[in-house]
Amino acid sequence: MPIDPRHPREIRQDIRRGKLTGITAGLGQNFVQANLAVLPRDSAYDFLLFCQRNPRPCPLLEVTDVGSAEPVGVAPGADLRTDIPKYRVYKDGVLADEVTDATPYWRGDLVAFLLGCSFTFEWALLEAGIRLWHVEQGKNVAMWRTSIACRAAGAFHGPMVVSMRPIAAGELAKAVTASARFPGAHGAPVHIGDPAALGIKDIRRPDWGDAQEFRPGDVPVFWACGVTPQA
Amino acid sequence: MPIDPRHPREIRQDIRRGKLTGITAGLGQNFVQANLAVLPRDSAYDFLLFCQRNPRPCPLLEVTDVGSAEPVGVAPGADLRTDIPKYRVYKDGVLADEVTDATPYWRGDLVAFLLGCSFTFEWALLEAGIRLWHVEQGKNVAMWRTSIACRAAGAFHGPMVVSMRPIAAGELAKAVTASARFPGAHGAPVHIGDPAALGIKDIRRPDWGDAQEFRPGDVPVFWACGVTPQA
Repeated sequence: MPIDPRHPREIRQDIRRGKLTGITAGLGQNFVQANLAVLPRDSAYDFLLFCQRNPRPCPLLEVTDVGSAEPVGVAPGADLRTDIPKYRVYKDGVLADEVTDATPYWRGDLVAFLLGCSFTFEWALLEAGIRLWHVEQGKNVAMWRTSIACRAAGAFHGPMVVSMRPIAAGELAKAVTASARFPGAHGAPVHIGDPAALGIKDIRRPDWGDAQEFRPGDVPVFWACGVTPQA
Repeated sequence: MPIDPRHPREIRQDIRRGKLTGITAGLGQNFVQANLAVLPRDSAYDFLLFCQRNPRPCPLLEVTDVGSAEPVGVAPGADLRTDIPKYRVYKDGVLADEVTDATPYWRGDLVAFLLGCSFTFEWALLEAGIRLWHVEQGKNVAMWRTSIACRAAGAFHGPMVVSMRPIAAGELAKAVTASARFPGAHGAPVHIGDPAALGIKDIRRPDWGDAQEFRPGDVPVFWACGVTPQA
């Protein structure tokens, strides 16, 4: 298992120096992992309200002051323009660029939002003795747009996105209680079992991330996902 | 004990008709009680961010759409201009009026914020067998400005306000665990014991609310308080 037990500060240094550019699953043991969304101040109120109204997919950990790329509340000294492996740059809602250093795109009117990520509680799942196929394989989780609508806020509206992990039937209760302890990182699952109940047509074809492998007796378990703002 | 077990909808009707104008402690059993703050849209982003950064004193339950006085998320059908016993109207930071109907002051650019209130978990404390002097007496809790600074957000900054209830020493652990179950209503105490540690000079003279009576063996227990935005 590609587990990296170092302090997040050291991991961020590696990322800043370009040594680490992949998926962050399995990193930052015992620390919260976050998704990053950056928006101009003009849209920040609506997005902040969207997060407040949809805390399961968008659990807010930190919002920077306008123009500041330092999340002083949760990671003083970090630089959100360089300390994340990869950035997707959207222009008018369309993916325009993918970079490992967002400094050239930073502006004085930008606000950074850090949303708790389910990678946070994977440690708790592993410690509870639950096998996680994607961690063992060094892959990403599987993610889908669902038929569950988020509560809209101004310009922001859309479906909830979920991440899915195959969990052995005998471990389902443990998966719920272990993840429920992390409300700041999506908390307990939003759904267990039949993907059709969430409007997911093909469990083998995720909208984002990697298709997961099911072992005999595995059940799909769905958590609200921080990719929701992109959907 | 002045306990009113009716559904909050009925209690709000009474308030709207002017039948109920006092303190709401002891009302709305098994429902969350909220503090109300109303601000113009121009200040709403900073205040929303202030709440996000200070969730213990300012646990956000609901933020209305601009111009709407209906908290559709937590109490559809309620009218925040009439369904609260009393309103304090501030102009340029100074108390300008106190009314039982805020309709004349409502404007199209206003946003209403509902913050969880510690009255919510008093039921849980009572059910755990903890005596609450102010509920027995039909009085308010005691509140103070503390020496703990909130994390600032734009124009909003200031000290955390706490509410205090005298709790029997033997019931302290129960008071912590019972209130900790309600993170949306300030959660567990921020301090137990010596008021001086919070910068409180005289436990008999609160900054807001009513002075509390201590029985022999009672310890002051302090919770973060939704009056914080007024401090």
